[in-house]
Amino acid sequence: MFHKILDKLDQQLHFDQVDAHCDIPCGIYDPHHALIGALTVVRMVDLIDEVVKTHDQIEAAEFTNHMARYIAVKEEHAELVKHEIRVIWGDFIKEKHLEDYPQLHGLVHKIMALGSKSRQTVDRESALALLEVVNEFAEIFWQIKGIETQRVSAPYSVKEEMVVPKL
Amino acid sequence: MFHKILDKLDQQLHFDQVDAHCDIPCGIYDPHHALIGALTVVRMVDLIDEVVKTHDQIEAAEFTNHMARYIAVKEEHAELVKHEIRVIWGDFIKEKHLEDYPQLHGLVHKIMALGSKSRQTVDRESALALLEVVNEFAEIFWQIKGIETQRVSAPYSVKEEMVVPKL
Amino acid sequence: MFHKILDKLDQQLHFDQVDAHCDIPCGIYDPHHALIGALTVVRMVDLIDEVVKTHDQIEAAEFTNHMARYIAVKEEHAELVKHEIRVIWGDFIKEKHLEDYPQLHGLVHKIMALGSKSRQTVDRESALALLEVVNEFAEIFWQIKGIETQRVSAPYSVKEEMVVPKL
Amino acid sequence: MFHKILDKLDQQLHFDQVDAHCDIPCGIYDPHHALIGALTVVRMVDLIDEVVKTHDQIEAAEFTNHMARYIAVKEEHAELVKHEIRVIWGDFIKEKHLEDYPQLHGLVHKIMALGSKSRQTVDRESALALLEVVNEFAEIFWQIKGIETQRVSAPYSVKEEMVVPKL
Amino acid sequence: MFHKILDKLDQQLHFDQVDAHCDIPCGIYDPHHALIGALTVVRMVDLIDEVVKTHDQIEAAEFTNHMARYIAVKEEHAELVKHEIRVIWGDFIKEKHLEDYPQLHGLVHKIMALGSKSRQTVDRESALALLEVVNEFAEIFWQIKGIETQRVSAPYSVKEEMVVPKL
Amino acid sequence: MFHKILDKLDQQLHFDQVDAHCDIPCGIYDPHHALIGALTVVRMVDLIDEVVKTHDQIEAAEFTNHMARYIAVKEEHAELVKHEIRVIWGDFIKEKHLEDYPQLHGLVHKIMALGSKSRQTVDRESALALLEVVNEFAEIFWQIKGIETQRVSAPYSVKEEMVVPKL
Repeated sequence: MFHKILDKLDQQLHFDQVDAHCDIPCGIYDPHHALIGALTVVRMVDLIDEVVKTHDQIEAAEFTNHMARYIAVKEEHAELVKHEIRVIWGDFIKEKHLEDYPQLHGLVHKIMALGSKSRQTVDRESALALLEVVNEFAEIFWQIKGIETQRVSAPYSVKEEMVVPKL
Repeated sequence: MFHKILDKLDQQLHFDQVDAHCDIPCGIYDPHHALIGALTVVRMVDLIDEVVKTHDQIEAAEFTNHMARYIAVKEEHAELVKHEIRVIWGDFIKEKHLEDYPQLHGLVHKIMALGSKSRQTVDRESALALLEVVNEFAEIFWQIKGIETQRVSAPYSVKEEMVVPKL
Repeated sequence: MFHKILDKLDQQLHFDQVDAHCDIPCGIYDPHHALIGALTVVRMVDLIDEVVKTHDQIEAAEFTNHMARYIAVKEEHAELVKHEIRVIWGDFIKEKHLEDYPQLHGLVHKIMALGSKSRQTVDRESALALLEVVNEFAEIFWQIKGIETQRVSAPYSVKEEMVVPKL
Repeated sequence: MFHKILDKLDQQLHFDQVDAHCDIPCGIYDPHHALIGALTVVRMVDLIDEVVKTHDQIEAAEFTNHMARYIAVKEEHAELVKHEIRVIWGDFIKEKHLEDYPQLHGLVHKIMALGSKSRQTVDRESALALLEVVNEFAEIFWQIKGIETQRVSAPYSVKEEMVVPKL
Repeated sequence: MFHKILDKLDQQLHFDQVDAHCDIPCGIYDPHHALIGALTVVRMVDLIDEVVKTHDQIEAAEFTNHMARYIAVKEEHAELVKHEIRVIWGDFIKEKHLEDYPQLHGLVHKIMALGSKSRQTVDRESALALLEVVNEFAEIFWQIKGIETQRVSAPYSVKEEMVVPKL
Repeated sequence: MFHKILDKLDQQLHFDQVDAHCDIPCGIYDPHHALIGALTVVRMVDLIDEVVKTHDQIEAAEFTNHMARYIAVKEEHAELVKHEIRVIWGDFIKEKHLEDYPQLHGLVHKIMALGSKSRQTVDRESALALLEVVNEFAEIFWQIKGIETQRVSAPYSVKEEMVVPKL
C-alpha cells in the first residue's frame, strides 16, 4: 500500500518547485551563508594556532577563555555549513539537477564528512578542505541557476577563495 | 592544490569511525527520535482534521489557537525528521555502507523532499509517506548494525507502524 | 478570588488527558530520548578519561579541542535529560498516577539533582547514577501505560543498561 | 550496586549548595523572569480578545497575522514559565526546603499543568491561574532566602499582581 | 569609581579591532545575511497576498497552514535582520566610523523600528522600507571597508534591489 | 521613491506605541533580565578566578570541566545582555525619548562594546563596567516610565549594585 502512495507522490514531486531556504518554498537561497561558515572555521583554526603560540606568555584563565571561545565558534560554524548545505540540497536540488550533476549526492555527503572532520580537528588542512567542497557546491548551484561565478579572495580577515555569482 | 588535500583526507576518512549523533563521534545513534517526529506529524494532521470539523461550533479564537499550535508542532517535527536523518546519514553512513546500500543517498534525499511536503500540506497521505521512508531508513540502519528489526504498532495515541530493533 | 479559580481549574484538570510531549496534547511520549541523553553523558565521561590519559602525548590545541567538545556535549545532554523528564512528568503524569506512584515527585526531583551533578563533575559514578534514575522513571512510565519492559544492554558504543518496552 | 551509588550521592547532595540558574551552580536565581512570562501570557489573551472583536472590520491577512503572533508569543512564554520554574525547583530547592515547604512538589507540578492549560486555551481565567501559582512559588522562594515580599501591581501594560522582594 | 573604570576601558576600546560577527572578534562580517532576511520578508508578504486571494477556493486547513507558515517565516526573518544588523553595528562599527557616518545610530535604530513594523503588518510597503534601510546600511558598511558596491536585482524569486560589493 | 515611503512610515511611527519585549507590541518590558545577565558575567569571572587558584590541586579533567562551563555561561549571559538591551532600545525607545535622553544611542552602543569585551576577557573590571552601563540604562528606562529607582545590593551570591524600581 505504501508503495502506491510513494509512487503517486513521486509523480507530484516531479513538478518544478521554487527553490527554498525555509521550506515554504520561498525561492530564496544562496550558499553564501555556508561559505561564511566555512571561512569562519578556517579563521578559528588560525586563531587557535596564534594563541597556542602564546601559551606560556599568558594566564591560564586567558588562554582557556580564548581557546574555549574559538573552539565553540568553530563547532557552531562547521555545523552551520552542514545545515545550510543540507537545506539547499534537500529543498532546491530536484531530480533533473541530479541527472545533470550526478556527483551531487556524493559531494554533499563529503561536505558532511568534512564538516565533522573540521570539528574534530584543529588543522588548517581540514578547514580548507571543507571550504573547497563548499565552493564546488556553490559553483554547481549557480550553474543550475544559469548565473556565472568567479572565485575571489574573501573580503574579510580571512582571504581564502570564495565562489561568488557575477550579478 | 586542493585536490591533493582532498585526496589525502579521502584516505584518512576511509578508516572505521564510530557512528555519531553529536559529531564527537560518540557512537550513540538511533532513528527513534526521527520516527517520533514522523509519528507526530501524522498526529498533527489528524488533530487538524478533527478541529476543522468543529470550525463552526467553536469560537474563532479557540479554533485559531488550536490550528496555529498543531501547524507549529507539525512544522517543528517535520524539520526534526530532516535534521535527525541528515545527521545519521552524514555522520554514521560511510563509504562501505553506500556500497552495500547504493539506494541510501536517494532515500535520504527523498526523506528531505517528503519532510518538506508534509510541512507544506495538511493531508494524511504526505505524512504517512514521510513515516514510511523513515521506517525504510531505520531498517537499513539496524541492518548495518547487524541487529534485527520488527515493525510494530506505535505505543502512542498514533498507532501507525514503526520499525524497532529486537533488543 | 484566586482560590476559587484554582479550585474550578482543579476540577477541570482531573479529566483524562492524553499524554503529551509537545503540550498539544498529542499523546506521543517516550523516555527513550532522555535515555539516549543519559547514555551520552556516560560516553562523554569515558571519552574525557581517555583523552586525559593522552594529555602529554598530544598537542595542547588538540587536547583542548577534544575536552571542550566532550564537555559541551555532556552539558547539552544532561540538560536534555532534565528537560525531557520534566515534560513527561509535567504533562503526562496526572493526579491518579501520583496516587499509584507517590515516589514520582521525589524521583523526578532527584533526576534534576543528578542531572546537575553530572554536569558539574567528570566522574563515571555520577553519570551512571543519572542513568539509573532515568531507567527507574522509564519503568514507571511504561507500567502506567500498561506495557512491560526489559533492561537491555544499549545497542551503542556505550553498553550500559537501558529500559525498553516490550513491543 | 546502583542503590549503593545512589545512597552515596544522596549523602553528598545534602551539603548546602548555592542556588543556581545555570547549573554551575552560580547562586543567581530569581522568579522574576517566570513572572514576566506569566504576565505576558495574560497580555496575549487580552490582545487575542481585542483582535477577535475586530474580526469583521479588518482584512483576513491582518487578522491572521495578529492572531498567529499573539498565539506564538503565548506559547513561548507559557513554556518559559514552565522552564524557569523547573530550573529553580530542580537546582535551588533542596531537601531541607522540601521539609519546610512540603507543598512545593505539588505546587510545581500544578504550575506545569497550568502552563499547559494556558497554552491550550485562550481564556483569561487560565492565564490568571498560572500567574497566581507562580506568585505563590515566588513567595516561598523569597521566604527561603529570608527576604520579605510584597504584592504589587505590575508596572507594565498588564497591571496584575506580581510578587516582588523588598530590597 | 565606576567612571574611572569606564574611562580606562574607553581608552582601551579606541584601538583598531577587527570586525566581528561572532564576538571573537574574527573579522568576518557581511550584511548579506541581513539582506536575505529582508528579501524573505518581502517574499512572505507576497505569498500572503497570493493565498488570501484564494481564500474561498481552498480548504480552511490548507489556507491556515499556508498563512501560519508564511507569517512564522516573516517573523523569523524580520527578527534575523534586527539581530544581524545589531551585531555588525555593535561589534564592527567603532568610534571613528561614527565620526565619518554620524547618521549610523539613527539608521540602525530605524532598522529596528522597521523590523518591528514589518512583523506587525502584512503590507509590502513596510517590507520594502525595511529592505531599503538595510541596503543603506550595507552601502555604508562596504564604504567603511573601502569596497565599492552596486545595486543589483536579487537573483532569487524576489527580484528587489540588493546592495552587493564589487569583488 | 523609497524616501517617500520612508517619510510616510516615519510619520506613522511617531504615535505612542506601548513598549515591547516581544515585538507584538505587548507593553511588557524590564531591564531586570539584562541585569541578571550582567551579574552572572561578574559571577563567572569570580568563579574562574577561584578555580584557577586551585589549578595544581585538582585533576586536569575537573579543572577543564569547570573552566569550560564558566566560560560558556559567561559567553551566554554577555550575549543575553546585548540582546535584551537591543530589544528595549529598538522597540521601547522612541523619538521623543531620544530627544529627552540624547545620550541613549551612545550608551547602548557602549553596552554592546562592553558586552563583547567581557566575553573576550576574564577580568572583573570589564564585567563590572558592563554591569554599570546596564544600570545606567535601567535608570533611564524607569525614568521614562515615571517610576523612581534605587540602587540595591543584588540579593544573590554576587552582591554588586543593581538598579530596581520602587514599586
